[in-house]
Amino acid sequence: MPEQQSEFFNLNDPTAGIRRELAPGITTRVFPGDQAMLSIVRFEPNAEGQVHHHPEEQWGVLLEGSAVRVQDGEEIPVEKDDFWRTPPNVPHTLRAGPSGALVLDVFSPPREIYRKPGRGFGTKG
Amino acid sequence: MPEQQSEFFNLNDPTAGIRRELAPGITTRVFPGDQAMLSIVRFEPNAEGQVHHHPEEQWGVLLEGSAVRVQDGEEIPVEKDDFWRTPPNVPHTLRAGPSGALVLDVFSPPREIYRKPGRGFGTKG
Repeated sequence: MPEQQSEFFNLNDPTAGIRRELAPGITTRVFPGDQAMLSIVRFEPNAEGQVHHHPEEQWGVLLEGSAVRVQDGEEIPVEKDDFWRTPPNVPHTLRAGPSGALVLDVFSPPREIYRKPGRGFGTKG
Repeated sequence: MPEQQSEFFNLNDPTAGIRRELAPGITTRVFPGDQAMLSIVRFEPNAEGQVHHHPEEQWGVLLEGSAVRVQDGEEIPVEKDDFWRTPPNVPHTLRAGPSGALVLDVFSPPREIYRKPGRGFGTKG
């Protein structure tokens, strides 16, 4: 097997990555790098996270479904193929639409608490 | 308009981002952040980049089409929904399949030369 194969993954592989239950109906698999960390988040229909913030920059890409992105108190509807940046320390969450949502999140630098399996957003608010 | 709207984009919006022609048949639109930079790369059928490397960590997600990812001299076939990490300084390129490819690249830290429109991969090899 090529040595680089260990750096290759698939969005739909439920066995890959570090599992985390962010909230009821919201689970993720986390892939840490040195400078950036990817998180593949599945939202069940109408699932909603808690508003939280952290010092790491975040980008999100809506790969499937629809949602309302809540960012700095504003509500912005998003559809498949929309993506967004969440600057450091800006409070945010996401509310999935009636068919749920699949979101690719990127954190930079990596969120240290996400390097191990667990529950919750790893923040106090 | 909500103030956060300026942080929202769409993968298929040809007017957004900083344009760069990486190679013949390979164009990108670049979205710089503070810690990470996204690059939405469209490959025409069978288009191939040049092998290059850079100190920034890179992640790639194959959003459409098929390709062969070349990384550290190894050739790894990839399909839609595959993604991969390219560690710093590892030589790499991508060869699109017969229907072309759409790749989301993430650089962290941002590649400074990609902050302005231009041509090429911004490296010497």
